[in-house]
Amino acid sequence: MAEKGSKSGTGGKKPGQPDLRRLLRVTPGKRLDLGSVAADAVPAGPAKKAEGLAATAAMAEELAGLQERLYAASTAGDRRRVLLVLQGMDTSGKGGTVKHVIGLFNPSGCRIRAFKAPTREELNHPFLWRIMRALPQPGEIGIFDRSHYEDVLIARVHELVPHRQLGRRYGQINRFEQSLVEDGVSVVKVFLHISPGQQRRRLLERLDNPDKHWKFNPGDLDERALWPAYRTAYEIALERCSTDAAPWYVVPADRKWYRDWAVSRLLLEHLRALDPQYPKGDFDVAECRRRLLA
Amino acid sequence: MAEKGSKSGTGGKKPGQPDLRRLLRVTPGKRLDLGSVAADAVPAGPAKKAEGLAATAAMAEELAGLQERLYAASTAGDRRRVLLVLQGMDTSGKGGTVKHVIGLFNPSGCRIRAFKAPTREELNHPFLWRIMRALPQPGEIGIFDRSHYEDVLIARVHELVPHRQLGRRYGQINRFEQSLVEDGVSVVKVFLHISPGQQRRRLLERLDNPDKHWKFNPGDLDERALWPAYRTAYEIALERCSTDAAPWYVVPADRKWYRDWAVSRLLLEHLRALDPQYPKGDFDVAECRRRLLA
Repeated sequence: MAEKGSKSGTGGKKPGQPDLRRLLRVTPGKRLDLGSVAADAVPAGPAKKAEGLAATAAMAEELAGLQERLYAASTAGDRRRVLLVLQGMDTSGKGGTVKHVIGLFNPSGCRIRAFKAPTREELNHPFLWRIMRALPQPGEIGIFDRSHYEDVLIARVHELVPHRQLGRRYGQINRFEQSLVEDGVSVVKVFLHISPGQQRRRLLERLDNPDKHWKFNPGDLDERALWPAYRTAYEIALERCSTDAAPWYVVPADRKWYRDWAVSRLLLEHLRALDPQYPKGDFDVAECRRRLLA
Repeated sequence: MAEKGSKSGTGGKKPGQPDLRRLLRVTPGKRLDLGSVAADAVPAGPAKKAEGLAATAAMAEELAGLQERLYAASTAGDRRRVLLVLQGMDTSGKGGTVKHVIGLFNPSGCRIRAFKAPTREELNHPFLWRIMRALPQPGEIGIFDRSHYEDVLIARVHELVPHRQLGRRYGQINRFEQSLVEDGVSVVKVFLHISPGQQRRRLLERLDNPDKHWKFNPGDLDERALWPAYRTAYEIALERCSTDAAPWYVVPADRKWYRDWAVSRLLLEHLRALDPQYPKGDFDVAECRRRLLA
């Protein structure tokens, strides 16, 4: 999706390894056609499920190690942190990604928030209010399962706000995310791209299994009928809000194992680029050892 | 620690399996002497490290399954949830327990909060104010790394509040926890019991490894010097606040693998006792299937 020669950010790249930050990035300012991106593709990754699962598991130790360093650095004043934003149609695997990818990290350093329909209190505030209250603290990995982008997605499809107000939101989002980046937040925005056929299969699976009925809402079928409108809304949002500071990534998500690999890999690349370091202690080690052994 | 014949709660017990809820419980109203409890004991559990690690890993699937049911039930109005309270001296392994035990669960259903020294805003409120804001929602597993008990532990040792005010807090805590239980919260309070010698070894390890210096604070040595006062404060808190509604458990924690096994097992027993069920769908499955296939 990225133009040749586009910047892939600094650091975090190792020779001979894929650079998903470049490959999956939505090029800022360029027209995006989601119809031209195969949802069952496996770009730059393992080709088969077994390999994919193994490759994801193999990242676990490095991911957790980088997370610990990020957290450790924050105790010495480093304000850097990561915010993973997950968006996608129903059944695209936002929840599964949290379970399988975020499950690789130490849960105490993860701040996860699933955004539902706004409450009355939230509606009484600007749309970014509830987002700001859920941001990761320095050293943490924040995860948004849905996000402020709903306010230009469902809000556009269902015309929840006047068109003019909607149009202003893209710029508001870009300025907001720019300010996050300036404050040390690595914003990793992932669109989980599934095909309508794959969604049908997943919804049928839920219907076929009574233990999954709680995940099913007949209203999901109404939303499904609006697929083309959602696709357009996503294309506009990703086009207008993929910026150099906070790019969008399109992750083909028909294959769950590829989705998990790709999101893990994106996080790994971002964390490697941050290259957090354990802070030095500012105390007298010998004196402390003496006191302990006294 | 429990008296013979004490109630172990209803359900959750399988024949031939240990009943940690009975074995590790601090008997309400009975004098507690922590000095008589071996911190390196392995009561009712695997005797060796390799077995212990395997036994903990073997619980993962059932734990995650029960968690999913608990969450699913909440979508149909079930208000039940779990709150794990972790207390213990520095290096007793509160953080390690979150990493290794809570890491067995789906992170999206866990609400983890580490309580530090209260902020100015928190000090301007009653001591339970910040606690109430961090409670798990229905269907969630909440984890407190330190808790409202600090307000009768460090507060007692350092005389942070007048003695009379301190004395009132035990009853306030019991009434608060009783109200949680009545609202569907299973309160699982775990004291991670380590020996002073084990703490010395762990602090020395931190000193010996520069990558662990960020975890070390020379102030910890001052607290260590107050060990007898903390032990007394813990004994009083556990005695007065181990209730039938919300008992305290003393988990020997000198062996990390036993600690993780025991806390996992306690959570398993509590979740089994809750026996959460997937809710039935209240929609027309055949009609939904027809619409999907149309």
